Order: sequence, then C-alpha cells, then structure tokens
Amino acid sequence: MPSTICAPATAQGQSAIALIRLSGPDSLPILQKITAAGKTFPPRTQVFCRLMDGETVLDEALVTYFPAPHSYTGEDIVEFAIHGSPYIRGRLLEVLCAAGAEPAKRGEFSYRAFLNGKMDLLEAQGLCDLISSGNKAAHDLALSSLDGRLSQKLNGVKNALAETLAQLEARLDDVDEEMPPLDVQKTVNDLLAQAGVLAKLADTFSVGRLIKEGLKAAIVGAPNCGKSSLLNALVGFDRAIVSDQSGTTRDTVEESLDLDGQKIILTDTAGIREHALDPAEQEGMKRSLRAIEKADVVLFVADLSRELTPQEEALWDDVQKQNKPVVLVLNKTDSATQNRCPLEGKAQYTVYVSCKKGEGLEELKKQILSFVAAPQAQGEDGVMISNLRQYQAVLNAQTDVESACVRLEHGAGLELCAEHIRGALNALKDLAGEVTPDDVLGIIFSKFCMGK
Amino acid sequence: MPSTICAPATAQGQSAIALIRLSGPDSLPILQKITAAGKTFPPRTQVFCRLMDGETVLDEALVTYFPAPHSYTGEDIVEFAIHGSPYIRGRLLEVLCAAGAEPAKRGEFSYRAFLNGKMDLLEAQGLCDLISSGNKAAHDLALSSLDGRLSQKLNGVKNALAETLAQLEARLDDVDEEMPPLDVQKTVNDLLAQAGVLAKLADTFSVGRLIKEGLKAAIVGAPNCGKSSLLNALVGFDRAIVSDQSGTTRDTVEESLDLDGQKIILTDTAGIREHALDPAEQEGMKRSLRAIEKADVVLFVADLSRELTPQEEALWDDVQKQNKPVVLVLNKTDSATQNRCPLEGKAQYTVYVSCKKGEGLEELKKQILSFVAAPQAQGEDGVMISNLRQYQAVLNAQTDVESACVRLEHGAGLELCAEHIRGALNALKDLAGEVTPDDVLGIIFSKFCMGK
Repeated sequence: MPSTICAPATAQGQSAIALIRLSGPDSLPILQKITAAGKTFPPRTQVFCRLMDGETVLDEALVTYFPAPHSYTGEDIVEFAIHGSPYIRGRLLEVLCAAGAEPAKRGEFSYRAFLNGKMDLLEAQGLCDLISSGNKAAHDLALSSLDGRLSQKLNGVKNALAETLAQLEARLDDVDEEMPPLDVQKTVNDLLAQAGVLAKLADTFSVGRLIKEGLKAAIVGAPNCGKSSLLNALVGFDRAIVSDQSGTTRDTVEESLDLDGQKIILTDTAGIREHALDPAEQEGMKRSLRAIEKADVVLFVADLSRELTPQEEALWDDVQKQNKPVVLVLNKTDSATQNRCPLEGKAQYTVYVSCKKGEGLEELKKQILSFVAAPQAQGEDGVMISNLRQYQAVLNAQTDVESACVRLEHGAGLELCAEHIRGALNALKDLAGEVTPDDVLGIIFSKFCMGK
Repeated sequence: MPSTICAPATAQGQSAIALIRLSGPDSLPILQKITAAGKTFPPRTQVFCRLMDGETVLDEALVTYFPAPHSYTGEDIVEFAIHGSPYIRGRLLEVLCAAGAEPAKRGEFSYRAFLNGKMDLLEAQGLCDLISSGNKAAHDLALSSLDGRLSQKLNGVKNALAETLAQLEARLDDVDEEMPPLDVQKTVNDLLAQAGVLAKLADTFSVGRLIKEGLKAAIVGAPNCGKSSLLNALVGFDRAIVSDQSGTTRDTVEESLDLDGQKIILTDTAGIREHALDPAEQEGMKRSLRAIEKADVVLFVADLSRELTPQEEALWDDVQKQNKPVVLVLNKTDSATQNRCPLEGKAQYTVYVSCKKGEGLEELKKQILSFVAAPQAQGEDGVMISNLRQYQAVLNAQTDVESACVRLEHGAGLELCAEHIRGALNALKDLAGEVTPDDVLGIIFSKFCMGK
C-alpha cells in the first residue's frame, strides 16, 4: 500500500493563505486525527474547521477532501487552506507527519498521478513546463502538452504503426500462407506518412526549445559601435554602462526581454579588436566569442558614422562561420557619414537603427521575433516539442520507421522490418512513460517543483 | 455598491498551485464571463473548469464560489486555485480586471470583512500578526486575538462600564429624584474591578511586545572577554568572527534565535574600553552603547581567567543606570584562575559558562527566556496585548476609570464621573474599531499583506 505524503503546494513566504496537500490512503484518517471528532467532510467541499496541535489550536482553516479516484493523484487527497504564516505551515507539516504522513519528494504527487493513469509522461512534463512558464509563448506551448494534444498526435502515429505491425506479424505467423500477400506499396506509403508526421514534429523542436528557454541573441561588433546602447534601447532602461571610451563593457551583460510574449535573452559583449589594451579587455573578448557560440541569433552592430575597418570585416567573416542567423544592425543613422555599409551585400538580414533617437528598434524587434515565430516552424496545430529527451525519441522513432520502409522496398525479410517498427513504437511509448524504467521516471519527476 | 476586487492570496513564486481571490457583488458574473456558458458553481464546492483568456485557454483550475454572507469578507467570493506559474497568475489578474474587477489594495479583503461585521479590529490585527508569526509564542499570542478572546475580555469590561454609566445617567436624568440614591461604594468597587482588569491587560504589553517582536539581548563587556564566542555558542554556528586579538568585533552583529518557540535577537557588540585604538574601534564602541539602549536584556560578559579591571567595573555601573535586567555571564570557567567575580554581589542574575566547552549555555538560555515567559506576566488566560496602539488605548481607559473612581469618592458631580466613563468606553470601542475614523482604519489595514 502506498504511503500518505504531504507537502506545501503554494510558494514560500508570508501570505494571506497557504495550501498544504496530503495524498494517500490515510489522508482522511490523518485529517480526522487533527480535527474535532465527528466532523464530516463532504467530497470537494471547503469545510471550515480548527486544526489541532495536540491540545492547542494550530489554526482555523478551510479543508477540502477529494476522495479517490477523482483527485489530482487518483488517491484520496486532503487540501488544507491555512493562514500563510511560516510557523503554521512548518508546524502543520510536523503535525501531519506525527499523525502518520511522510514528507513528499519533489514531483511525487505528479508521479502518483502518472502511476494511477491520471496523466501520461508528456502531460506531466507539460504541467512542469506550465508552472515555470513566464510568458505567453511558453505558456501556450506547455498547455498544448498538458491538455494532451501532443499525446493525441503521438497516439495517432502509434496506432497507425501498431496496425502496420499487426499486418506484418500476421504474415510472419501465417506459416500455411493462407493470407493474401502484403501490399508492399501501400504499407510503405502508410509508414512514410507516419515518418512525415514525426519529421514535422521533430522540426518543431528548434523553435519549441527557443520558446521554452528563450531565444539567445548576442550583440557583437567592434569596440564603441554602440552595442551597449543597443542593449539599453531594446530593454528600455540603462542596463549596461555606456561611455565614449572604447572597451567599456568587459563582463558580458545579460538581460531578458519579453517581446510579444516571447522571451529573448540579450547578451551585450565586449567589442572585439586585434589588440586588447589590458588583460581585462582580453578576457572580455574571450567571453564575447563564447557568447557568439552559445547564441541562437547574432546581432552584428556596425557604426554608420565611420568607415568599416578591415578587422570588422574579418570579425564578420568569423561570425558567419558559426552558421547561425546574423542580423546586420547598422547603428547611428542619426550621425551617419555614409548611408551604406559594405557588409550589406553579404548580410541576409539588415536593419538600420538609431539607438540615440530610438529609430528602427521596432523593425529590429520584429526581425528577432521572426526567428521564433515563423509560422511554418510552429507546427500548423500549435503542437510542438521543447525538450531534448522528447526530440531524441521522436527522431529515433522517425529513423526506425524510415528504415522499415527502406527494408520493405528492398525486399528484406518482414521480420527485420517488423523489428524496426517495434523500435519506433518503443521510442514513442517511452515518450509517454509507458515503458520507461522507474529510475528514469524518478529523475524526470524529481525536476518538478515541490508539492506538485 | 462596493466594487469587486481581486488579488493573489498566496505567496509569489513558482509553485504547484497559486490562489487568486475575487470578492464583491460581481464575483459570480465575472467568473461566468471567463468560463464555459452554463457551468454551475455549487456553494463552497471545488469545481474543475477551464479559464478562458478570450478565445484561448488560460488554465485548467479548481474554482470555488462562496456566496455572501458565508465568506471571509461577507461578500460573494470566488477563489481560483490555478497552476502556480508567474505568467498565469499575472494574466488571470489582467483577465479579471478586464472583466470588471479592480486590483485589491493591501488588507482590503479584511477591511471588507470588518465593515461587514465578520471580525472586529482586534481580531483583524490578530490575523495580521498570525500571518507574520514565525514561532510558537508569537503564533499563540496572535491566535488569542484572532479567535476573539481579547475582544471578549474587553467586551466584559465594556459591558460593566456601560452598566455603571447607565446607573449614573439614570440619576442625572432623574430630575424628580424618584430613584434611590447611587450606592457610591458599590459603584467605586465595580469601577475598581474593571480598572484592575485593564491594568493587568496593560501589564501584558511589556511581554506581549517581546513575544511579537522578539526579545533583544545585547552582549556587552570589555574587549576580548568572549562576547563573540558567546553569540556563536548560543546560535550554534560561527556567526561572528572570533580571534585572540582584542577589538575584533566592530560592527554590531545581530542574529535571531528560536528558543523554545520564542524569538530572541542577540546582538554582539564591540568591547568597550577607555582608549580605542583607532576610529573604527571608536565607532564600534559608540554602536555598542546604542545597542545597550535598545536592548530588553543585557548579557554582561566577564572573563573568569583574568582579574576584573576598574574599567569593567565602571562599565557595569553605566549599564546598571539603564534600568534593564542585566545577566552577569561569567565566561571561561574552563580556564578560570578565580572562581568568583567581584560583580556577583551586585548582580541580580549570574550564570557561569564555558563557551569553549559548551557548558552553562542551557542555564543561560533558561535565564533569558524567563524574562519573556514569566507566568505572572503572561496574563493567566493567555490573553495579552502586543501592539502599541492597543496598549495606549487600554492605558487611557484604565486612567479614565480610575479618575471616575476618584471623582466619585471625593463627591464630585456625577456628570464629571460619567464623562470619564464615557472616555474609557470610547477608548475601548476605538480598540475594536467601532468608533475609529476611516482614515485611521485605512492606515491600519494597509499594513496587512496583499490578498488578505
């Protein structure tokens, strides 16, 4: 029999109310131990009662009893809405443990919900992402997992693959050859259709990841071309120190920005030139190069008020080698001495700005957002994957399905083909947690927040 | 008609669940605007439903409807138990406001509860104290206000005074002298009994304040007598830097300690000697003297391993002038060269300790606690006052009642006596918020936490 677990479900800190949850077979007996004898708790109804700490009153609280299986975990749950004092919260947990409960591990409520079939692993991960979502894009993405849309899509693929597998296995079992022969072309087409669904889903990862984690944009360029001014102009306040002195920025300066509900992480870097003035500047330049490597998008700033230096051209070429989208940001249009920049011909995206006058910033923001919000990348139904484990499983499944097609087309044995389909099904079942080993599940759920 | 207000009721931060509350006449219509048409919400029952943000789903939540007057505020309340994501919380508040709610001011839920007669001001203040209580003593104290024990005690006094006042007023109105004359002695006795109740209650303030705010104990003494070692030994970890060098401590070092559920705030101070070595030490000594002034109890440390200096004796006399309890802490019993200290004769409380060996600390802790936990100070029924506004009102009422007695005994007119009783009653009504001006109430409730 499972134990009965307890944990706070709301954030730490003084507040009007705090919630503590109890889940497991002893939830109701434990509740009865710490409340007046004979008190009744109709299902899902908030009941006002005194919680006792031995002979003394610990708190007056609203208590709700959710009988199994109609609860979050599928077990009996009791929820205490207590006054949000640190003392009461801590003491109630002690009192519950003295009455027979155990402190819950992180994610243990959700783990129990998963074990009791209340949600699959994809929905549970969606829930975890939902709680940590700080903007609209991440929220919508998490909700599409939580409400089962991702699971439904993958179930569609699983059902189709299982149907094909059944056809193959029927032939393998058919030693007397009583069945009609397999329609190879139809089977290949069926499999390719499913591989296509998986490929599209895998493609959403590049954007799904950016939505969940935020798009990292590194601001790079020669010293004193206005990188810190650009950061400040984009975030809307003086985050980085700006001066006329070249090499003012040394440490990379990072700031998050919510652009139309999408998280953008801007990194201002030290200007890069051939000869650093001192070790601090040299170290700063090293960090700039690392920031470029980690970035999803590079904002390459050039100063229109002066000529481009050969070093800047060399830096541009170096940045291109990283194979990431680069936006050429031509700054200081307000005091431009030239109206073109030799790099423009090489750049795929160019935006003219004046950080001083605040011009061109909206266009630059739109350009940055386009890397995340490109509709073709979003998966037409809004269903995306955003975590590496899911991405790898989808990719493995896709590869297995494609291999099965190749075997079939080249007339390999049906057994080999069936084996690949089984591999794909297994990868998809692992995604939903159906065949996932307990220790792996333990690690996944331990990343959840306390009380969930 | 009052507006409908909304606010988060749980602490900020990512968590499994967050609560948002709506209170006011439009609570139910606003809920219906953001949920599916036709959904019903039986009273006090947690209903699972989707919250809509226009056309898109914002969250799946448990929603409870508390119809007036059986709710915290006495108004219609709707409580949303949402997923604890910063985005969802912020967005739901925006959605509620777009649907007609207003953001609640701090304490506005409790203010409405007060206006609707759900609690008096003393209970409301108890609630506010309860939420901020971080230990058992403060918790029990707050609960005695919250559950109305303090209000009941004061109501007893108010009823008795009102009865006496009625007797006096009846005589004042009795122009035809048809009533029997006033029994002066009985009236004086009645009034003195009530003055006694008020005096006892006022006496609890000194301890009530210490329970609520914590007892401040300043550790003072000559340089290098082991003050920082004592702080560390009491708190149980190396909080203050200890060295053989005299004058190591300069800034005062403060640390809180929970002794048997009572908060103790220990302050380690710079050692005091006639000639400071440098300006930093001199400044440190100034701060020591200020710490002594602010302390509730002084722990005077002397070193048994060396002779007492004349300066230490002078410091002792200075500390005595402050008129606070002083505990003489004789340190270094482990390497004592003498087993008595000349100050012992002058000290009311003496404890021998060895910080090095951890000896005598339990006795010292008991001694410190005795200043808070003295049963005679606690009010025999556990009812105490802990806030200055309450203390002053009780004291004013007591003074007025005593003045009324004096007038009566000295044969002053009944009108003057009645006026004093009216003054006392007014002070007590002000305590419960019955006659308190709105702007004063506004200030009191604005100290509450958000969402309460």
